[in-house]
Amino acid sequence: MLISSQFDSGNIEVVKADDASDIRLNIRKDNQSDFYQWFHFRVSGVEDTPCKFTIENAGGAAYVDGWKDYKVCASYDRESWFRIDTMFDGETLTWAFTPDQDFVYFAYFAPYSMERHADLISEAAQSPLVRTSVLGHTLDGQDMDLIELGYGPEGRKKIWLQARQHPGESMAEWWMEGALDYLLDMDNPVARKLLDKAHFYIVPNMNPDGSVRGHLRTNAAGANLNREWNIATMDRSPEVYLVREKMAEVGCDFHMDVHGDEGLPYNFIAGFEGIPSLKKKQTELIEKYQNILEKLSPDFQQEHGYDEDEPGKADLSMCTNYVAETHGCLAMTLEMPFKDNADMPDPDYGWSPERCRHLARACMDTLHRMIDDL
Amino acid sequence: MLISSQFDSGNIEVVKADDASDIRLNIRKDNQSDFYQWFHFRVSGVEDTPCKFTIENAGGAAYVDGWKDYKVCASYDRESWFRIDTMFDGETLTWAFTPDQDFVYFAYFAPYSMERHADLISEAAQSPLVRTSVLGHTLDGQDMDLIELGYGPEGRKKIWLQARQHPGESMAEWWMEGALDYLLDMDNPVARKLLDKAHFYIVPNMNPDGSVRGHLRTNAAGANLNREWNIATMDRSPEVYLVREKMAEVGCDFHMDVHGDEGLPYNFIAGFEGIPSLKKKQTELIEKYQNILEKLSPDFQQEHGYDEDEPGKADLSMCTNYVAETHGCLAMTLEMPFKDNADMPDPDYGWSPERCRHLARACMDTLHRMIDDL
Amino acid sequence: MLISSQFDSGNIEVVKADDASDIRLNIRKDNQSDFYQWFHFRVSGVEDTPCKFTIENAGGAAYVDGWKDYKVCASYDRESWFRIDTMFDGETLTWAFTPDQDFVYFAYFAPYSMERHADLISEAAQSPLVRTSVLGHTLDGQDMDLIELGYGPEGRKKIWLQARQHPGESMAEWWMEGALDYLLDMDNPVARKLLDKAHFYIVPNMNPDGSVRGHLRTNAAGANLNREWNIATMDRSPEVYLVREKMAEVGCDFHMDVHGDEGLPYNFIAGFEGIPSLKKKQTELIEKYQNILEKLSPDFQQEHGYDEDEPGKADLSMCTNYVAETHGCLAMTLEMPFKDNADMPDPDYGWSPERCRHLARACMDTLHRMIDDL
Amino acid sequence: MLISSQFDSGNIEVVKADDASDIRLNIRKDNQSDFYQWFHFRVSGVEDTPCKFTIENAGGAAYVDGWKDYKVCASYDRESWFRIDTMFDGETLTWAFTPDQDFVYFAYFAPYSMERHADLISEAAQSPLVRTSVLGHTLDGQDMDLIELGYGPEGRKKIWLQARQHPGESMAEWWMEGALDYLLDMDNPVARKLLDKAHFYIVPNMNPDGSVRGHLRTNAAGANLNREWNIATMDRSPEVYLVREKMAEVGCDFHMDVHGDEGLPYNFIAGFEGIPSLKKKQTELIEKYQNILEKLSPDFQQEHGYDEDEPGKADLSMCTNYVAETHGCLAMTLEMPFKDNADMPDPDYGWSPERCRHLARACMDTLHRMIDDL
Ligand SMILES: [Ca+2]
Ligand SMILES: [Ca+2]
Ligand SMILES: [Ca+2]
Ligand SMILES: [Ca+2]
Repeated sequence: MLISSQFDSGNIEVVKADDASDIRLNIRKDNQSDFYQWFHFRVSGVEDTPCKFTIENAGGAAYVDGWKDYKVCASYDRESWFRIDTMFDGETLTWAFTPDQDFVYFAYFAPYSMERHADLISEAAQSPLVRTSVLGHTLDGQDMDLIELGYGPEGRKKIWLQARQHPGESMAEWWMEGALDYLLDMDNPVARKLLDKAHFYIVPNMNPDGSVRGHLRTNAAGANLNREWNIATMDRSPEVYLVREKMAEVGCDFHMDVHGDEGLPYNFIAGFEGIPSLKKKQTELIEKYQNILEKLSPDFQQEHGYDEDEPGKADLSMCTNYVAETHGCLAMTLEMPFKDNADMPDPDYGWSPERCRHLARACMDTLHRMIDDL
Repeated sequence: MLISSQFDSGNIEVVKADDASDIRLNIRKDNQSDFYQWFHFRVSGVEDTPCKFTIENAGGAAYVDGWKDYKVCASYDRESWFRIDTMFDGETLTWAFTPDQDFVYFAYFAPYSMERHADLISEAAQSPLVRTSVLGHTLDGQDMDLIELGYGPEGRKKIWLQARQHPGESMAEWWMEGALDYLLDMDNPVARKLLDKAHFYIVPNMNPDGSVRGHLRTNAAGANLNREWNIATMDRSPEVYLVREKMAEVGCDFHMDVHGDEGLPYNFIAGFEGIPSLKKKQTELIEKYQNILEKLSPDFQQEHGYDEDEPGKADLSMCTNYVAETHGCLAMTLEMPFKDNADMPDPDYGWSPERCRHLARACMDTLHRMIDDL
Repeated sequence: MLISSQFDSGNIEVVKADDASDIRLNIRKDNQSDFYQWFHFRVSGVEDTPCKFTIENAGGAAYVDGWKDYKVCASYDRESWFRIDTMFDGETLTWAFTPDQDFVYFAYFAPYSMERHADLISEAAQSPLVRTSVLGHTLDGQDMDLIELGYGPEGRKKIWLQARQHPGESMAEWWMEGALDYLLDMDNPVARKLLDKAHFYIVPNMNPDGSVRGHLRTNAAGANLNREWNIATMDRSPEVYLVREKMAEVGCDFHMDVHGDEGLPYNFIAGFEGIPSLKKKQTELIEKYQNILEKLSPDFQQEHGYDEDEPGKADLSMCTNYVAETHGCLAMTLEMPFKDNADMPDPDYGWSPERCRHLARACMDTLHRMIDDL
Repeated sequence: MLISSQFDSGNIEVVKADDASDIRLNIRKDNQSDFYQWFHFRVSGVEDTPCKFTIENAGGAAYVDGWKDYKVCASYDRESWFRIDTMFDGETLTWAFTPDQDFVYFAYFAPYSMERHADLISEAAQSPLVRTSVLGHTLDGQDMDLIELGYGPEGRKKIWLQARQHPGESMAEWWMEGALDYLLDMDNPVARKLLDKAHFYIVPNMNPDGSVRGHLRTNAAGANLNREWNIATMDRSPEVYLVREKMAEVGCDFHMDVHGDEGLPYNFIAGFEGIPSLKKKQTELIEKYQNILEKLSPDFQQEHGYDEDEPGKADLSMCTNYVAETHGCLAMTLEMPFKDNADMPDPDYGWSPERCRHLARACMDTLHRMIDDL
């Protein structure tokens, strides 16, 4: 039996792998950080072998409630990621599995590699509707890709979509694939209307370094990018700095920051209710957005979510608060589950890339309904 | 130069084809009928040859206003059907075209062959969600295919979708492809919710004989099926008889009859306001359906459409009236254009198969929003 | 239970279908002919129903030895045609089957529809290497399509490939798909070399009328096209007349006529050894072709085949004899089995469309090896 | 303008990039080695900008004659790699290009990423014919993947195929894709015959570490794996050690080591004529293999190639010599060009992934012809 994680977004440390019935692992911390929870590895030499996996340091992970009712993602073909029953005892995470073939991959969620990201950018760039650019480099020297679409006369709404500040939240980039496919389909009347009225700025991956490195939450320097918006520098958080400055240059009328939530088994939106300059229109818009999205997508709901900030107490280092405060516009954090949507559970696949894509389409439909209100 | 139409849904008669610059054609009447307007033919031996086509009997076609602002559909590859500028002088329809290759196809609208229909049924049948059946035979001996999905406990809503009573309205079956793809995608939360609550009865092609024969409006016996619902017999209109009896057996809570309209360059819905037993709830439901659909799809509108029947004056031989009267439910006729949606024109492709599919998805989204009201 | 065959290449007559355990059928004769053996039909309403099918008039079919060790082809999805154990008692052909779904198709061999033929022509026409033309019309008014490739300077070899003189031999058109795919792949060095040296004339379907009509051997007028080459007229056999005249115009250095054989479970080649003007070079070439092909494709052999004609006794109404005699070139009839290749049997699928494609590629490889000898 | 190479197989160092008309670059050396020649980078911010690229240290690269008549590979979509005119003055390599879009990729040859490698293994593993295993880990901790197919009774020939000892020779893994596709197609009679008689051991990538690192010739420790076969250790060259030991365990009747050659614009085979134990049969077999392959593939030739070793002077650290000596079998090095096949030049794409696949199929056809001789 061999275990490897030396690939894009790989993360595991082997404590003991001499006995398939008692494989003991640790998740590696994000570089220069104490955060950890993302894992992604391959086990080989295990065909028809009853295996038991234990992640020993699960109890110290960033979001311990993320393990409750969690089911690990597994794949033979790297395309279909099915779920396996998993137990958490407060300290260790364990699952048993007897593979049908020599090897199997496990991950916290269906991974989205930087090779796939490069294909996403390249494919979008072939569309006559699209212009791409590179805003600058990350600390590891990777490109910060920006996709723009909806070119036209002045006065159009500036729509920002960004994903994966937290690199382990790969569902956010699956969502981006769905949004891009939907917007680039010129037979789609919703896309045509949106592109008539709006100029889109899309950052499909805010954290390429953390993505390759198999991080949960931070960039190469250990910075949690969603705590950097009012302090970002090229030295520590160029990813945020570059996007923030571009936004300052071109403006922003709508901002959606796409995330995954480790704990809550629901799709929900978090707002900016604690920002100092909160305007009534902003509050009305975010309520309207959620109300429409809830009607359009049975996978979205408003019952479960984060506690609201008290007035004036918003943390302006966070993207949604920063953008809502700075640009006075509608901004929001979309959270999708690592686990499943408990309102419409899928015991075989849980929350999945394809479901992310569907939610993205519903989000674009919702935006279409509100584009004139922004 | 050679002209042929001896294939599925082919229809043309050559008056004169000895001079590419003056090709003269007639459309053949539907069998045992005076209706005609559908055409579909292939011209070969015309590479780099300036051709001019004249349909001499266009002025006597079923819907003369259908030719106003109409652009003929053309294809080299039988997949992509582009539009060509076309003129109508009140009597003849003419267009000029210089093909890039030896042959080109022309048609009134992108054709949908019975071979493709058979593939549609076969593919749907592979889904574990689906059961298919054959209700009986047409006059020419073809199968009347029914697709059912949404099996489950009693009490679920009975949703009927049917298309192509008028066989030349091929857009209606492209719409059906879109609806089926959407409903059979089990990662789609709207489909999952609908299939939880509803049992679908889908007839993708109500008129196989007219389809193969290249008819505009009638079946093999010259019957306009949408004038047969209260008088259908196995001898003259088995297509309607078989579907009507199945509906009587299993019930109907929602009925959508999908059509194309020759004249109006819009998508719209026609109702049943003239039926004797009209209920207020029925009226409210159809208004609600249209209001929601209009918000969801920029390709749908309520400004342009048919005149309403006077109270009690509905023609009960028509499907929507018949079903609304007989089953007391929401029923409607969805009309799509042969030309284009004038509110969102596409000069290159006009109204197209892909746009039909998008409209179908919006119709299913609308149904999802109203399923509990039915 | 319902049985239908009112579709492209459909052929069956129902004697009795009131009892699934004893369904009695006849094959319809080719129009104006006594030949029959091709069948193709759909049975519906039979999910989980043990069915037994009997073709009562099998004993009178054109090639009775075709039923010996034959296994009927069946398909749910119209793409994958699997085989079912079948019995022949000298008079009737019977098989038992319990379908998993509501309907199943049966056929003598995997059908190749005229819609697919039209797609084949249209797709080939998109290649910059190809020019298509229509030689004229069949008796039913269908197009006789010709594909040419390999344009270039004078002096190149004229290579003719034609298939499906006998329309029920659908394997011949599957072979054509394989040959075309291979020749049109410009990364394929064999194709590049061939197109440098040869001009191809390809007739993928010699008998469109018989194909649509569900015939085994004849055209719409009951003519066996492979007995018309020295007597063809536009009145009775325009398919042969048009091709023969084109060949007379442009010449022929190599001719392959692709067929299926009902009886022999092997791939083999028949020649022209009885033609009056037989040249030693012709004999050497056909032997060389077979020797090379046998080495390249394990699916080809030389042990089993037709008896040779006695010297001078060749029937010049047959294509291969006619072409070899008239053009003094290498000509041959390639025969593929309806059953299977007994040297490499596949109990699940028998001889199949995909295997036809592989054989076509090996035939093109063989041609490449001999192109300079022609 | 930004230049990046921080991705799989990326390799470039920017000397100066402040002026698009004079971009100056160096290729980075392989780790712990003086070899360099592979490059792969992305330039962005250059839409419609005339760019000139100069690789300053080209003159010191491993194979200077590789730059003569070389044309750089470029791609917008990472799938299609077209060629650009390139000049070499003995010291620097230069090319000019004005991109149509914001970014373009350049590489020495079409790259083959480890993500694609992982997909190749995963896809093969889905075949019922295949078993995969991991032989051990590289120095960087990557898996050494082995694919086996052709399971069956004892006595079958042991066929080894391996590629990419030199990681910059990505054409070798494109060849592997072609070989695997061909062998796994069970409708292919050649594959069926081969799998009846042979057990295949396939190592699609001998040097994963060098591949990711963007090396030309060495592994992570700077070892040229094709100089390690008689001295390999787990410390310095585990890739060779692991494969060599597996081969010792199971045996070898045929070995093909797939490479690319920087200088010669031809496909050719190098043998083992200098090994001490050279047998006449070995010499005959390699001559036969080349003779057959030359007939089957116009892309293969025997005129151009490496000088032969003098008798007994073979370097047994090289794979082909080592295997031929140790196993007494047919072994060979297949070399494909980085440039093009000068006998069949393609000015647009040069030698390409698709052409590698075709050559692989011809190699398997050749093997089929000789399998009984081994
Ligand atoms: Ca997050
Ligand atoms: Ca209508
Ligand atoms: Ca025949
Ligand atoms: Ca090499």
